[in-house]
Amino acid sequence: MSEGDTRAIVRELYDAYGRRDFERVAALIHDDIDWVIYAPMSVFPFAGPRRGRAAVLAAMAEIAKVFALEAYNPDVMIVDADRAALMSVVSYRQRATGRVLRVRIASFLRLQDGRLVEYREFIDSFDAVEQALGRELQL
Amino acid sequence: MSEGDTRAIVRELYDAYGRRDFERVAALIHDDIDWVIYAPMSVFPFAGPRRGRAAVLAAMAEIAKVFALEAYNPDVMIVDADRAALMSVVSYRQRATGRVLRVRIASFLRLQDGRLVEYREFIDSFDAVEQALGRELQL
Repeated sequence: MSEGDTRAIVRELYDAYGRRDFERVAALIHDDIDWVIYAPMSVFPFAGPRRGRAAVLAAMAEIAKVFALEAYNPDVMIVDADRAALMSVVSYRQRATGRVLRVRIASFLRLQDGRLVEYREFIDSFDAVEQALGRELQL
Repeated sequence: MSEGDTRAIVRELYDAYGRRDFERVAALIHDDIDWVIYAPMSVFPFAGPRRGRAAVLAAMAEIAKVFALEAYNPDVMIVDADRAALMSVVSYRQRATGRVLRVRIASFLRLQDGRLVEYREFIDSFDAVEQALGRELQL
C-alpha cells in the first residue's frame, strides 16, 4: 500500500467516525483487528484490548452510549507506509451529566488490505478519569 | 529536511537518551523547543509543559533523579517529513523503592534545523500513577 492510500483511508475512517457513520467505519475495519485503548477499564469499560471487528464495534457502541461526540479534530497526522499516527483534540459530552470532557488522543494505526488491522490509543488517562468523575482523585 | 534525515536524527536522539549521553541529547534539542508530557504534575513533577532547551534538560534531570532508566525500546517508529511518532516500551526503576515501573510511551516529535523543536508525550497516566505509588487509586 502506498502512503497516499494510507492517508486517504485513515482520513476516510476519521471522517466516517466523526459523522457517526458506523456502517462505513465497520467496512474500514479488518476482521482480525488488534485494538487497545490504554485507560482504566474500571472507569472506562470500553477501554483495554479488543480482538476482531465485532468486539471493536461493540466497544465503539459502548463509548457512544456513555459519551456524545462533540468534536474530533486530528491536529497532526503522520503517515509512513502502512502506518499512521494522529494527535487529536476531542470533546465528548457525558450523557449522564451533560458535562463536556476535553481530551487529547494519540493514536497509532496500521492498515492491511486497505483496512484498519491494528489500533493503539493513548490519553492522559489520569486527567480523563478526573474529568469523567467530575472531581480530583485522592492520592 | 528529508525523511531519511528525520529518521537518522530521531534514532540518534533516542540512542543518546538510552545511553544517558545528555551532552549529545542537549546538542539535538532546539533552543526554542516546545515540550509537553501529559501526566499529573502532582505525582510526576517533571511532567507538564516546558519551553526552551534549559527547561527541558532540567525536566530530564528531574526524571533521572527519581527514576533510573532500565530500558527504552521504541517498538514502532513512524516518520513523515519533519515529524516522527514512536511507541516505546520503557522500564524505569524508582530509586526510592527499587520498584520497576513498566510503561508504554507514545511520543510525537517535530524537527527543525536538524534538532528537536516540538515534543508531545502520552502515557496511560492513571496506570503510571498507580505504579509510582505502588497501590491502586481509590475512585
